Amino acid sequence: MATTSEASPTRILVAVNESTIKGYPHPSISSRGAFDWTLQKIVRSNAAGFDDMDSIYASPEDFKSMRQRDKARGLHLLEYFVTRCHQIGVDCEAWIKKGDPKEVICHEVKRIQPDLLVVGSRGLGPFQRVFVGTVSEFCVKHAECPVVTIKRSPNETPQDPVDD
Amino acid sequence: MATTSEASPTRILVAVNESTIKGYPHPSISSRGAFDWTLQKIVRSNAAGFDDMDSIYASPEDFKSMRQRDKARGLHLLEYFVTRCHQIGVDCEAWIKKGDPKEVICHEVKRIQPDLLVVGSRGLGPFQRVFVGTVSEFCVKHAECPVVTIKRSPNETPQDPVDD
Repeated sequence: MATTSEASPTRILVAVNESTIKGYPHPSISSRGAFDWTLQKIVRSNAAGFDDMDSIYASPEDFKSMRQRDKARGLHLLEYFVTRCHQIGVDCEAWIKKGDPKEVICHEVKRIQPDLLVVGSRGLGPFQRVFVGTVSEFCVKHAECPVVTIKRSPNETPQDPVDD
Repeated sequence: MATTSEASPTRILVAVNESTIKGYPHPSISSRGAFDWTLQKIVRSNAAGFDDMDSIYASPEDFKSMRQRDKARGLHLLEYFVTRCHQIGVDCEAWIKKGDPKEVICHEVKRIQPDLLVVGSRGLGPFQRVFVGTVSEFCVKHAECPVVTIKRSPNETPQDPVDD
């Protein structure tokens, strides 16, 4: 996602994932929160310099070894975010990547060298944190660019974790 | 610091400090880095909606108990940042606050409720980290808003730590 101006554009990497195991692929609440924050607070309506670059669902080697169903779900997920970028005229490239999320994200930061990485966080409790750690904490420590973590607000916690 | 547009402006709190004990007060390298990043990557040239609000050096109870010399140094420090905001037409309020930096910053976040807190980091080594901790790490954990830490790049490390 990039906001353009006379100078070189600010390039923002937003890491998103789909909602756990619910039937139809849709974005997790925390990743939609991170995306919304980025549009509202950082990108805003300033992207007047939009140069109509094609958004692409790139899929190199990663795609080869993925099951057909996962490919379809991934594409569907990204479609949501790409459409929203298009609606406000923001350049956007969307990538599906396979692997351990925290490592894939940090690897992508190395490759893309964005000005800012935005990740959502479900705000795990202390108990879950010990065993799971969180993707966002790993990225804050290891990603080679500034990182901002958007915590889910308490009132967005879904009743059924499967919706998360 | 705020970037304005048709919607409500994005409000950014940038925490700065002066260079340690060197004669003339000037900003620390890490806080200037955080400020520069904010202007270049987030605020950019988008602040066309500038409404010419006065920047103020506010100084409530905090000021009472400060030594004359510290007041002068603090004002001088903020002048640097306020001037730079003015030059590109960005609304800015600058405050001197007294106390433990990490607690003061988190307290200000509660008071101001910014959309984003930006803090610089000197990138302490593991040894210093254990005993000192860092202001930025504390803020990432405890501040009640999204936080981005701008690390100093290795080639900006001053030869004499007193310049930091």
